[in-house]
Amino acid sequence: MELHKESNISCSSAAENYLIEKMNKIKIFSPATVANVSCGFDVLGFCLDSIGDEMVIRKVDKKGIAITRIEGFDLPFEAELNVAGVSALAMYNSLDLSFGFEIEIYKNIKPGSGIGSSAASAVGSVFGMNELLGRPFSKTQLTEFAIKGEALASKCEHADNLAPALFGGFTLVKSVSPLKILEIPSPDDLYATIIHPQIEIKTSESRAVLPKEVPLSDAIEQWANLGSLVHALHTSDYELISHSLRDVIIEPYRSQLIPYFDNVKEAVLNVGALGAGISGSGPSIFSLSKGLDTANKVKDAMHDVYSKTDIAFDIHVSKINANGVKIIN
Amino acid sequence: MELHKESNISCSSAAENYLIEKMNKIKIFSPATVANVSCGFDVLGFCLDSIGDEMVIRKVDKKGIAITRIEGFDLPFEAELNVAGVSALAMYNSLDLSFGFEIEIYKNIKPGSGIGSSAASAVGSVFGMNELLGRPFSKTQLTEFAIKGEALASKCEHADNLAPALFGGFTLVKSVSPLKILEIPSPDDLYATIIHPQIEIKTSESRAVLPKEVPLSDAIEQWANLGSLVHALHTSDYELISHSLRDVIIEPYRSQLIPYFDNVKEAVLNVGALGAGISGSGPSIFSLSKGLDTANKVKDAMHDVYSKTDIAFDIHVSKINANGVKIIN
Repeated sequence: MELHKESNISCSSAAENYLIEKMNKIKIFSPATVANVSCGFDVLGFCLDSIGDEMVIRKVDKKGIAITRIEGFDLPFEAELNVAGVSALAMYNSLDLSFGFEIEIYKNIKPGSGIGSSAASAVGSVFGMNELLGRPFSKTQLTEFAIKGEALASKCEHADNLAPALFGGFTLVKSVSPLKILEIPSPDDLYATIIHPQIEIKTSESRAVLPKEVPLSDAIEQWANLGSLVHALHTSDYELISHSLRDVIIEPYRSQLIPYFDNVKEAVLNVGALGAGISGSGPSIFSLSKGLDTANKVKDAMHDVYSKTDIAFDIHVSKINANGVKIIN
Repeated sequence: MELHKESNISCSSAAENYLIEKMNKIKIFSPATVANVSCGFDVLGFCLDSIGDEMVIRKVDKKGIAITRIEGFDLPFEAELNVAGVSALAMYNSLDLSFGFEIEIYKNIKPGSGIGSSAASAVGSVFGMNELLGRPFSKTQLTEFAIKGEALASKCEHADNLAPALFGGFTLVKSVSPLKILEIPSPDDLYATIIHPQIEIKTSESRAVLPKEVPLSDAIEQWANLGSLVHALHTSDYELISHSLRDVIIEPYRSQLIPYFDNVKEAVLNVGALGAGISGSGPSIFSLSKGLDTANKVKDAMHDVYSKTDIAFDIHVSKINANGVKIIN
């Protein structure tokens, strides 16, 4: 595997490093993420703080990867059929170890909700193993392993949820082959509000509605907005973030699969949100706001719209998570 | 006209301001510019230093706009038919003045060369008049006037050459209506080399080759590259600038209208250029390099390719012009 320039996972001192190397068990928090982010379809993503999976990774004598416990949702225990298992195996098989790993998964992110459930699983196992091994791999290398797990869930190799889950903050996946992930800075006071309407959108359906070709004029508008959004994030220009959060290509098609999408969008903009769009391929809808107060008003506005329907839903308010997946306890 | 947040044209002290207000005549340098910049088709541009037009603007008793002298190229003297005249009239007619302006044009940028010849004319007159008037208008407002002149030349209202000519550096035109121009920072040691093969490409032809629709996958690659280029310019990451300077949408079509385009591109990349592409709608080809030495090697490489052909050409090496149009003498 190509060696990348970035340093290996930081955030700990040499002493902590030593402790982790001596540890045989680690508990981690693997966050939910929002991919696409309006004009950044297929390339941009950001990391959430208030919702994510927990996983325990244990170094054991027995070789191989064993998933020993799954709580929260009904997922396969066979490593080859489990997203966290597949990414773990991709890393494990790249090494020649005399021992193995056990994985416990405490799943909080509902599969199919559109906030990076499979990415959180794929990232958690390789992050935890890398910690227990003394961090031989960079975050980009971990993403390469996690892509294999993500591909099991989404049938294609993409990194737009994996990258923010591993790196935190906003990430732009410039290319998948070779994998090139950019960390885009973002202002401190940026909050996300996410509503998850509990309906199922089949992946096949959300793909089928996308056009194969798009008008050049729309593509130009989309890349003007993405270039502008990257600039706005760099310069902490909230007004420009707001003007840039527009998706003229995908949203007109996919929003039709999400009931009350237009109502939610109108309601959150009315209470001061910077923008709103489809999280991943839906059905979740994300909104970005300046400040927690506005993000909470956005939550109320989303609640008002969906509480009048017969669709169950839940809503999360989250600061942008600057660090991504992390050790807990 | 909407008032914009940016400050009015700076670069002078209050004393200079006073002098300019008392002056009745001003000489300005209006620079050539490169629009499109590979992945930034229709939105991105940058400003050159070593080539541009000179203009003299004179406050006169007689009302109206009069073009009194044109040197360099054969252009119409009637203000309504001259790019510099049309933009000047747009500004003039927005005011109620008891006097008028005379304009002398010393044209160095060949019309149709693809390095913003009409933009330099359109910008020069309004910039000079604004200086003589004590700077009542912001740069964005000047761009609004200049768009009218540019439209005379290119039959459509666009600002991707005007913005860098007025603001300097790299600019991203997020939208034309409303006009929203972003100034993208760029690293200090960035140089451009431009070759102008003296062939004519008709505007109608360069438009006709463009597809009306583009594959979504290509559009995604293009906006990933543009987002990445904006990030690379912000972070002075030359390697990423190089990786981002790719145009998968327009260049495959338009480069066919420029003889030896592929040879030039290959030759300049071989001597260390960061990238190369079509300047505007051609026929000029631009290249970006880190450092003057490399930019000069790129010049030699371009020279080698075209000196073997029977096409006349000229080549300019230029630092990125951080300031744009300026007063001289």
